Amino acid sequence: MLLGLAAFGVAQSAVANDELVKMQQDPNQWVMPTGDYANQRYSKLDQINATNAAKLHPVWTFSTGVLRGHEGGPLVIGDTMYVHTPFPNNVFALDLNDNGKIIWKYEPRQDPNVIPVMCCDTVNRGVAYGDGKIILNQADATVVALDAKTGKEVWHVKNGDATKGETMTAAPMIVKDKVLIGISGGEFGVQGRMTAYNLKDGTVAWKAYSVGPDKDLLVDPNKTTSMGKPIGENSSLSTWQGDQWKTGGGSTWGWYSYDPGTNLVYYGTGNPSTWNPVQRPGDNKWSMTIFARDADTGMAKWAYQMTPHDEWDYDGVNEMILADIDIKGKPTKALVHFDRNGFTYALNRETGELLSADKFDPAVNWATHVDLKTGRPEVVSQYSTQANGEDKNSRNICPAALGSKDQQPAAFSPKTKLFYVPTNHVCMDYEPFKVSYTAGQPYVGATLSMFPPKGDTNLGNFIAWDADKGKIAWSIPETFSVWSGALATAGDVVFYGTLDGYLKVVDAKVGKELYRFKTPSGIIGNVNTYTHGGKQFIAVYSGVGGWAGIGMAAGLSNGTDGLGAVGAYKQLSNYTQLGGVLTVFAVD
Amino acid sequence: MLLGLAAFGVAQSAVANDELVKMQQDPNQWVMPTGDYANQRYSKLDQINATNAAKLHPVWTFSTGVLRGHEGGPLVIGDTMYVHTPFPNNVFALDLNDNGKIIWKYEPRQDPNVIPVMCCDTVNRGVAYGDGKIILNQADATVVALDAKTGKEVWHVKNGDATKGETMTAAPMIVKDKVLIGISGGEFGVQGRMTAYNLKDGTVAWKAYSVGPDKDLLVDPNKTTSMGKPIGENSSLSTWQGDQWKTGGGSTWGWYSYDPGTNLVYYGTGNPSTWNPVQRPGDNKWSMTIFARDADTGMAKWAYQMTPHDEWDYDGVNEMILADIDIKGKPTKALVHFDRNGFTYALNRETGELLSADKFDPAVNWATHVDLKTGRPEVVSQYSTQANGEDKNSRNICPAALGSKDQQPAAFSPKTKLFYVPTNHVCMDYEPFKVSYTAGQPYVGATLSMFPPKGDTNLGNFIAWDADKGKIAWSIPETFSVWSGALATAGDVVFYGTLDGYLKVVDAKVGKELYRFKTPSGIIGNVNTYTHGGKQFIAVYSGVGGWAGIGMAAGLSNGTDGLGAVGAYKQLSNYTQLGGVLTVFAVD
Repeated sequence: MLLGLAAFGVAQSAVANDELVKMQQDPNQWVMPTGDYANQRYSKLDQINATNAAKLHPVWTFSTGVLRGHEGGPLVIGDTMYVHTPFPNNVFALDLNDNGKIIWKYEPRQDPNVIPVMCCDTVNRGVAYGDGKIILNQADATVVALDAKTGKEVWHVKNGDATKGETMTAAPMIVKDKVLIGISGGEFGVQGRMTAYNLKDGTVAWKAYSVGPDKDLLVDPNKTTSMGKPIGENSSLSTWQGDQWKTGGGSTWGWYSYDPGTNLVYYGTGNPSTWNPVQRPGDNKWSMTIFARDADTGMAKWAYQMTPHDEWDYDGVNEMILADIDIKGKPTKALVHFDRNGFTYALNRETGELLSADKFDPAVNWATHVDLKTGRPEVVSQYSTQANGEDKNSRNICPAALGSKDQQPAAFSPKTKLFYVPTNHVCMDYEPFKVSYTAGQPYVGATLSMFPPKGDTNLGNFIAWDADKGKIAWSIPETFSVWSGALATAGDVVFYGTLDGYLKVVDAKVGKELYRFKTPSGIIGNVNTYTHGGKQFIAVYSGVGGWAGIGMAAGLSNGTDGLGAVGAYKQLSNYTQLGGVLTVFAVD
Repeated sequence: MLLGLAAFGVAQSAVANDELVKMQQDPNQWVMPTGDYANQRYSKLDQINATNAAKLHPVWTFSTGVLRGHEGGPLVIGDTMYVHTPFPNNVFALDLNDNGKIIWKYEPRQDPNVIPVMCCDTVNRGVAYGDGKIILNQADATVVALDAKTGKEVWHVKNGDATKGETMTAAPMIVKDKVLIGISGGEFGVQGRMTAYNLKDGTVAWKAYSVGPDKDLLVDPNKTTSMGKPIGENSSLSTWQGDQWKTGGGSTWGWYSYDPGTNLVYYGTGNPSTWNPVQRPGDNKWSMTIFARDADTGMAKWAYQMTPHDEWDYDGVNEMILADIDIKGKPTKALVHFDRNGFTYALNRETGELLSADKFDPAVNWATHVDLKTGRPEVVSQYSTQANGEDKNSRNICPAALGSKDQQPAAFSPKTKLFYVPTNHVCMDYEPFKVSYTAGQPYVGATLSMFPPKGDTNLGNFIAWDADKGKIAWSIPETFSVWSGALATAGDVVFYGTLDGYLKVVDAKVGKELYRFKTPSGIIGNVNTYTHGGKQFIAVYSGVGGWAGIGMAAGLSNGTDGLGAVGAYKQLSNYTQLGGVLTVFAVD
């Protein structure tokens, strides 16, 4: 059956794949949330550059009518911009010929009871386009395909059960004739998986779990490798106690990549559930893992677990940036990944070979280093919440649970060969406690508080990373975490947003600030660019929220609320207020 | 007692009065919602002018975190901007030296049950400044005085009972040592009044009802005049049946003016309750009336009722613009008033003499003219909902209930001698029905639907009015009602906002459009201007709502909902979405 589906897929897939590959090579459009399959978030446009960036200014704006955190960014297909919102996940098709007049809008009706089962704000990271359809992941785990021209529903399917804490925040990615759909809910004991739906009708093409029996994992014990070796039988089951894997997490709420050359899709899995490591002995595979899977069948080619037996909630879901670059001086078909745990990993994306793992924030202290032979981090026992034990407060662990970087995607410029990385500069105290699983109830098992590293006051840095040398090229301190996605362009300028609301443009080579504009609210959206009528535009959502802004977004006030974020970010409300607004910039 | 208060007032009042008079003459600040006591909304600033207006662009923005309709506008006192919101009526002090970083915020806790007793969206038209205090009218009829430097509460008083439908939407006006506070609730049978509170401590200085016994009206039957004659005893009571005056309306939710030369304050009163005219025989005085009252004592000098025995909800609360201009060729200390009923009235503001009354929208059909001898309109029986009777649908009445102009304030330029008037171009069908009064329940007694005048598609016009000649100088059609307040400047440019979200700048002499910018949401706020660091800025709220936008703001969908507004404005959601954002513009 699986083979049959795959065979059918090959014939049709060539078309959709060709379309998206071609469209993403056209810098006049922004056809997928990640910019391209490689997640480079790089544009060949250069009308806006270091010489004229200071002359940028807003040219039109659009309020989404929704207050909470606006992650992701709009798509631009031809003369139409597709704007999405957090819950209730409205979608607007805006007319670029008329300053964003609404062509159509789609306003799903969802049960608001999904809101309390979304751990880290009611965010959504964007819609996908393919084959004339817009694919929307609703918070309540409904996937909807809309006609891109009319906004009418073509099909919808349920990808999970929100009453059990299965929700969706990730953007879909369309690959060939399929759409990849992940699941959120690591804080509710969800069994993570990646599902490929047929774009045509929403039927399931393949489904690959992160944890569980081999058949559910879509692995071949003899052919699927990790650190160069076959993973063997029961690679996941053998790393869990009893049937804990059934509520074992490994959710898939981050960003996905695809390499048409290898036909592999890449994505990371999230934390093992619960956050109390004492309760779940073992490596808890394949949580915290990069998977490389065949796009047609879902079969895993390789896997690499960054953080075995997680003790800190260092989800491995951050984006995999695919780039053909030098690593340690050697030309490489690389996959570069800035992990929550504070290490930048570079791997050979064809083989899964681990080439380097370097701290991208000097504050990182939970591990001394990653052993490139075994792939395992060397944990510092002082910061091991497992070693310190239940009901013990492990102090001053860096990074905090939200990581040295979270979902905020980095960009890569093939011109400068630098990665531009929005980072968090935050540490934590972490106290695990015993928790029992109840479907639909939080299954967290830890309390934490967050704060800047000792001696520092800045909660974030925007850094340029040299992956070849494994070090920071330049770094810009920011008052708060940089929770916005970056954009690099051929104009040798880099764009990012700040939690206190500024869109900033810096020189790609040296990091010098060229322009800033105070948008209506804090920026946690991802900057994109496109042309219209031959002119380059920059677009970004503001709308403070996300995990870092959960205190404001959800109206929390106790310091340890919001999974520890409220305390660290409590000053944020002195800088900005809620409100979802798209701002479009240009140079006149 | 009253004399004692007044005498005390004189001593202290000179100080506060001098401060505000002086401050409003300084065009670098915007010290009151109306710009100045004369409600001219004119600025002597001319850095932005017809030559360079096309180079305007946003320089910073601020989301208020509140979605519903944002009427009014911010104040600018020195380096601080004071921004307010609709319910829950938050106030922000923003630092102009730092792109609007929040200096302090005041977030009242109000019972949300006030929302359903606000007829026409949860709007608020601004805060007042005086004597180091910021005065806030909360929706729930609480008046709060805040320390302008710290945001700490200095005093608060209750100006009404929201459980009876007494709410507040109007901006306070500070005159001498007092603050004038009106009341909303004409749709709930509120007994309208104007109350002057002592700015120092919130104690009541005087209170003047719109309807009721002479002592409550603060009138002198022999000295208070109307149309040049003493109003006589029981001027109000004699125009009501029985004790209907007790639920008789005449609310005071509009704009107030003050003339330091005459020491008179001017304001208009709203509709008589209910909207069913058959149920309340008589002229229903002093609803629909301009009052001129002594600022110290509240005693009325004169009164003029525009719409005796209202049959259409033509509230008389629109602003009184004070200007020394020619009327019919004769130099006049004029009061010019663009009434909901579609007539522009010019009166001698010292004596109350009616000088002219001209239709400012040719569509107006409910009356042929106003008799300048009697002051009474000549009602066209076809459009008399009284004559047609209860449960009869009177069709195609122009203007609709929300008038040829509602609260959206006009501006006046002493340079061009023209008034710049945001107008509605809307007609209605109106069907009165019997209703009985229950405290806190709607006391409307009419259903209506609204639509553009026959043959037209535009629901609004932005017009320049020549009050001397009593005619339109030029007119710009707009898709929707122009629900934003205008600003005129010495740069011979005029600013206004549109319901579909554009800030527009036009040439003051000929109305030619010079600039437009699509702000995040529909504009129902009032444009202001100020300087900072020697540079001129323009500020305006967007945030669609108000009566015209009530369908979107309150999520209504039935055509006759929202007191008839939903049907006419249902296309609005194809242009813009909700969201309160301040946008600040400059020319670089």
